[in-house]
Amino acid sequence: MKLNWGMIGGGEGSQIGPAHRLGALADGIFTLAAGALDVDAAKGRDYAMRLGVAGDRAYGNWKEMLEGERDRDDRVDLVTVATPNSTHFEITKAFLEAGFNVLCEKPMTMTVEEGEEIVRVAEASGKICAVNYCYSAYPMVREMRHMVATGQVGKVRLVVTNFSHGHHGDATDADNSRVRWRYDPEMAGVSGQFADCGIHALHMASFIAGDEVEAVSADFASTIPSRELEDDAMVNFRLAGGTVGRLWTSSVAIGRQHGFDIQVFGETGGLRWASEQPNQVFYTPVGGRTQIMEKGEAGLSSVAQRLSRVAIAHPEGFPLAVANIYVDLAAAIRGEAVGSLPMAADGLRSMAAVYASVASAKSGGAWTDARPPMFR
Amino acid sequence: MKLNWGMIGGGEGSQIGPAHRLGALADGIFTLAAGALDVDAAKGRDYAMRLGVAGDRAYGNWKEMLEGERDRDDRVDLVTVATPNSTHFEITKAFLEAGFNVLCEKPMTMTVEEGEEIVRVAEASGKICAVNYCYSAYPMVREMRHMVATGQVGKVRLVVTNFSHGHHGDATDADNSRVRWRYDPEMAGVSGQFADCGIHALHMASFIAGDEVEAVSADFASTIPSRELEDDAMVNFRLAGGTVGRLWTSSVAIGRQHGFDIQVFGETGGLRWASEQPNQVFYTPVGGRTQIMEKGEAGLSSVAQRLSRVAIAHPEGFPLAVANIYVDLAAAIRGEAVGSLPMAADGLRSMAAVYASVASAKSGGAWTDARPPMFR
Amino acid sequence: MKLNWGMIGGGEGSQIGPAHRLGALADGIFTLAAGALDVDAAKGRDYAMRLGVAGDRAYGNWKEMLEGERDRDDRVDLVTVATPNSTHFEITKAFLEAGFNVLCEKPMTMTVEEGEEIVRVAEASGKICAVNYCYSAYPMVREMRHMVATGQVGKVRLVVTNFSHGHHGDATDADNSRVRWRYDPEMAGVSGQFADCGIHALHMASFIAGDEVEAVSADFASTIPSRELEDDAMVNFRLAGGTVGRLWTSSVAIGRQHGFDIQVFGETGGLRWASEQPNQVFYTPVGGRTQIMEKGEAGLSSVAQRLSRVAIAHPEGFPLAVANIYVDLAAAIRGEAVGSLPMAADGLRSMAAVYASVASAKSGGAWTDARPPMFR
Amino acid sequence: MKLNWGMIGGGEGSQIGPAHRLGALADGIFTLAAGALDVDAAKGRDYAMRLGVAGDRAYGNWKEMLEGERDRDDRVDLVTVATPNSTHFEITKAFLEAGFNVLCEKPMTMTVEEGEEIVRVAEASGKICAVNYCYSAYPMVREMRHMVATGQVGKVRLVVTNFSHGHHGDATDADNSRVRWRYDPEMAGVSGQFADCGIHALHMASFIAGDEVEAVSADFASTIPSRELEDDAMVNFRLAGGTVGRLWTSSVAIGRQHGFDIQVFGETGGLRWASEQPNQVFYTPVGGRTQIMEKGEAGLSSVAQRLSRVAIAHPEGFPLAVANIYVDLAAAIRGEAVGSLPMAADGLRSMAAVYASVASAKSGGAWTDARPPMFR
Repeated sequence: MKLNWGMIGGGEGSQIGPAHRLGALADGIFTLAAGALDVDAAKGRDYAMRLGVAGDRAYGNWKEMLEGERDRDDRVDLVTVATPNSTHFEITKAFLEAGFNVLCEKPMTMTVEEGEEIVRVAEASGKICAVNYCYSAYPMVREMRHMVATGQVGKVRLVVTNFSHGHHGDATDADNSRVRWRYDPEMAGVSGQFADCGIHALHMASFIAGDEVEAVSADFASTIPSRELEDDAMVNFRLAGGTVGRLWTSSVAIGRQHGFDIQVFGETGGLRWASEQPNQVFYTPVGGRTQIMEKGEAGLSSVAQRLSRVAIAHPEGFPLAVANIYVDLAAAIRGEAVGSLPMAADGLRSMAAVYASVASAKSGGAWTDARPPMFR
Repeated sequence: MKLNWGMIGGGEGSQIGPAHRLGALADGIFTLAAGALDVDAAKGRDYAMRLGVAGDRAYGNWKEMLEGERDRDDRVDLVTVATPNSTHFEITKAFLEAGFNVLCEKPMTMTVEEGEEIVRVAEASGKICAVNYCYSAYPMVREMRHMVATGQVGKVRLVVTNFSHGHHGDATDADNSRVRWRYDPEMAGVSGQFADCGIHALHMASFIAGDEVEAVSADFASTIPSRELEDDAMVNFRLAGGTVGRLWTSSVAIGRQHGFDIQVFGETGGLRWASEQPNQVFYTPVGGRTQIMEKGEAGLSSVAQRLSRVAIAHPEGFPLAVANIYVDLAAAIRGEAVGSLPMAADGLRSMAAVYASVASAKSGGAWTDARPPMFR
Repeated sequence: MKLNWGMIGGGEGSQIGPAHRLGALADGIFTLAAGALDVDAAKGRDYAMRLGVAGDRAYGNWKEMLEGERDRDDRVDLVTVATPNSTHFEITKAFLEAGFNVLCEKPMTMTVEEGEEIVRVAEASGKICAVNYCYSAYPMVREMRHMVATGQVGKVRLVVTNFSHGHHGDATDADNSRVRWRYDPEMAGVSGQFADCGIHALHMASFIAGDEVEAVSADFASTIPSRELEDDAMVNFRLAGGTVGRLWTSSVAIGRQHGFDIQVFGETGGLRWASEQPNQVFYTPVGGRTQIMEKGEAGLSSVAQRLSRVAIAHPEGFPLAVANIYVDLAAAIRGEAVGSLPMAADGLRSMAAVYASVASAKSGGAWTDARPPMFR
Repeated sequence: MKLNWGMIGGGEGSQIGPAHRLGALADGIFTLAAGALDVDAAKGRDYAMRLGVAGDRAYGNWKEMLEGERDRDDRVDLVTVATPNSTHFEITKAFLEAGFNVLCEKPMTMTVEEGEEIVRVAEASGKICAVNYCYSAYPMVREMRHMVATGQVGKVRLVVTNFSHGHHGDATDADNSRVRWRYDPEMAGVSGQFADCGIHALHMASFIAGDEVEAVSADFASTIPSRELEDDAMVNFRLAGGTVGRLWTSSVAIGRQHGFDIQVFGETGGLRWASEQPNQVFYTPVGGRTQIMEKGEAGLSSVAQRLSRVAIAHPEGFPLAVANIYVDLAAAIRGEAVGSLPMAADGLRSMAAVYASVASAKSGGAWTDARPPMFR
């Protein structure tokens, strides 16, 4: 049986909403059963219904949704909170207290005190409260964690991680509302870039090393002077077991796109992973050659194999390319003109080329007409 | 309203089935409404029901499905044919004749004559018959096609494409049933590797150049001597407009994983794309510097923007990493132990690290306790 | 004792001359003792003397040089022939017949008959006649050859090599004399791009595989129509032992710079090397992970170790960066203003930064003045 | 006229000596005229003479060399000091005071006070005292400095640089004398890895930004506990003009080989360079696409063009591949067996393959015998 899923925030045009919907629906495990998707109640209800939510479960705001779902027999099994950061605490707490499982976007709260309160409430409720540190869910990141846990690189001496991009590097663009709030303490809290991106990297360091951060020494900079909060930060840290950590995060690294990478150096080996090439881990045993590990290769642990949806010879992103074919098909079925969909004529041309190539190869490479007879 | 989708083949453990299901479900456009998923009728019915198909639409074979769906008011809007290659023709033809839209896996047919028949039947039926050349659906591949069509690289002089892997390079493994049939004319027809992988590359060349293959000169080799069909092929070709083409495909290129790439060279510029780095196109205007184009960047055509599900700073595969979080959540909701799910305590630790880093930066880099008070 | 070296061609402004001089002088083995460097006798003599050649050995043309050197006791131990291609045969033959060792630029001759004549003359003379297929002299290329020879990848099934660039891709530039002659049979002979670049790749394939080319099937194209000779070629080949070969070479591949690469696929492993990353070989044992082999790593054969001038942690090109420091020093010694030479003040600043960093680390990361006292 | 060059240290088997000799000799500007190459006087004299130094200028130690060279008319124009670090100060000072130009290996001195003394002595002497920060001499590094100086990336906000390798990551190897002294304050002074590699990166940051380091905040770690000095360091810094700097250096980053890279982020653009790919700079104008700049491309400044020895289509390291041909030739001339030298027969085979390919292409790809007649 599918699980019922509800979403708060992530309305039309939001940045993170599509990733949650695609993530929840991709494997056919969840059904989008309820939603309060937009701060504009009417827009949110309309969009939810367009996404297939029944009219009585397309709510105007999260409080309506809490009331509406609380006593249903088929109430949602999971609530995703993808609202502005400052509202995470209140919403997450309320749903936990009402006995719902919650997936909260990061950062979970604005303060440490709120975070401790959520931990307590979650524990008291007996419900799941997860946080969307999704980079830790790449199959090969899980494999690295497994390798560390099973001693394959020895005691971890050093973790070095970067999460840097250049998308906020244009000073003339810095006052755009899409950008400005991130560096305004009124809206973003005590930290800008580190709280936005750096915490993904810090979580990843702990996640792979299997150890917790104990102390930090930081250097923050607002390289665009109009910003009150940092747009570039270096955080040195120590894990409880003594591992040395180095974390650089920046939003003014002009030219970097998806610049999240992590390197783990242990007594007997090193590991390297980057989000732009997420299917590979570079593993170097001390004194040996670097080996390129591939998602799906024989011999990986079950923690990685379990999350691989396509076989090894298929590149990252392949399932979404297939999804694009279905997007085009749906458009065509609905009568839209879709020029780019591969059609039967393309399938025929391929077969004609196969036969012509076979004939050419058999005749020592002779040039051979490759057109289907019906198209000559 | 969601569209109803039916699937033939792609049963449990199949290689391509998961990519179709994920592709069809990812965007919430289709519902899996019917299926004949396995050559073993009972297994197929069982698996379909586990995937949420109603009992009366979980069919034992494609003929049952054709009968069962033919007269329903809510009959499937699209049938995907993902069965063994030799059955594509018969099934596709039957469903088209019954007025269904069809997406057929490649190769669409085993012979040119069958291919021509499908084209004729599709035309007569007025229905859609598409073929799953899914690599052409990557957003940046669509962008390249658009660039060529709008003259941004001038007349295309040359297309060079490779689709080569090494997964059939082990002679001691060549007799495994999973591999052997691909090189046996009884089962695979007239061509091995070229019909399996090469036709993706040949379609892509035509697709991007916007022109059709007219003639070929081929060199086929069975580098593992026990194979009757080729495991390595070079196909030189000419498009109708005179473009020169070069296509190498191999299954014995030991060390290559997802080796599909294409280069397009025109009078005023060159383009390069590779499936392992599908979000980038390398574009070089003649006499100028190579520019790295990024999926989602400002200024791309609508054909690429329309298919980008996440914003520019997110890497390829990000949505499926989010999906993995939901896989873990579903497991946890069902009561399984899931050690790797980021929990509220992780969210709390992040916030404690943010506050500690802010304090450290303000005090000139002083080392600061980063643990949440409740965990000290 | 150093060996005496003489050079014919390679005058001021030539493309290949500097590489020969640097190559011959780098290790201090040869002294440039004689030269006939330019088709303009006066310019050639002048340039030779500026390069340190004694006045009586700075010749006006190769015939003068042959006469002048023939009977000297200290005559040159080696003559490099770096003149236009059509003159290679005559000069090489004459010097061999006079008992000199010769290094001839590629292509050695313009015809097969001339080539056979050179082979016969060289054999009769007992002297060395080498050809500058210098790509085969990269340490890691030598290592690949050694690996094949010692059976580390098994019988070689397939060699795939490309030597393609885009530097002749501008049709508006095609009539420049620097480019045009390469595609004019009057000057270039029977082949353009294949004879210019492709033969490097073909030699490399034979060199690494340890086997000779027996038969070819080729497709040549003049993608810029004004060209009589090919600017793009695909050559399929077979080595004597049955190895399948594929070679693509192009000069219209806009965006490619130094595009020489080779892949070797054997029964038990694959190898990959590219001229843009010449210190690494990617080696994949069948069924195993790709390993990155590094120039200088422990365990390489002596054929590679012998040619490594700097230790493993130093990147390719490092010695020439050091050479650039010496170029600047020579300029400074001669009284030129050289703004970019690192000076004592830079050495001092480094030491001040080291002490300041040590102090900062000892005081828990406190910000510390890093300027030398004398510069505060 | 060539300049006379003298070398102190860099004897047989030393790590840096070969790079200096190759650097000084490569362009034919310097002659190795004098040397005190080894702490073992006899070995040093012998090696110097084998390198072509006259017997009376092959000195037993630097003091002899100073005495011997001081009053010669043809005394050396430049002395390179490549001795153990602790002796740099004394030797450099003595030669400067005697009126010689000096190139000193890094680190120039062991203390700040010594460094200030060298600066004073150099100034008083009117002679050149340079330090071998050779990475700053790569053509494309010079180009980056030029781009910053001419405002092409605007005011520099941020410089991020790493110089990390894993060659000292094996704890079981840490007591080898080759490694141990680097982490022993008795021999290495106050700093290990930062003074050894980090100062290259710190100099580069200043060099490209055109500004000096003013303050630092550092975190040092001895990740192998037996080490007194740091094997991993993070140094945050500020340049005088306010630029933020981040520098990571490590010798325990197992799997990294030549890991020196630098990123420069300004108000209007970003730059990226790495020592493993030294011919390219990645330049991103704010809001625009990343462009790949190539050594030798049209439009580069004269500071880069001046140091490019080979034309654009030739990869990094090409001149040394040519040098390897000459190494083999010298061996062959001396009568050694050299199996890997390309010979006339190879030149002939190429020409036969060219003619056969031309014939094949003309006959529509027909397979054609490619062997020279004399070898059939």
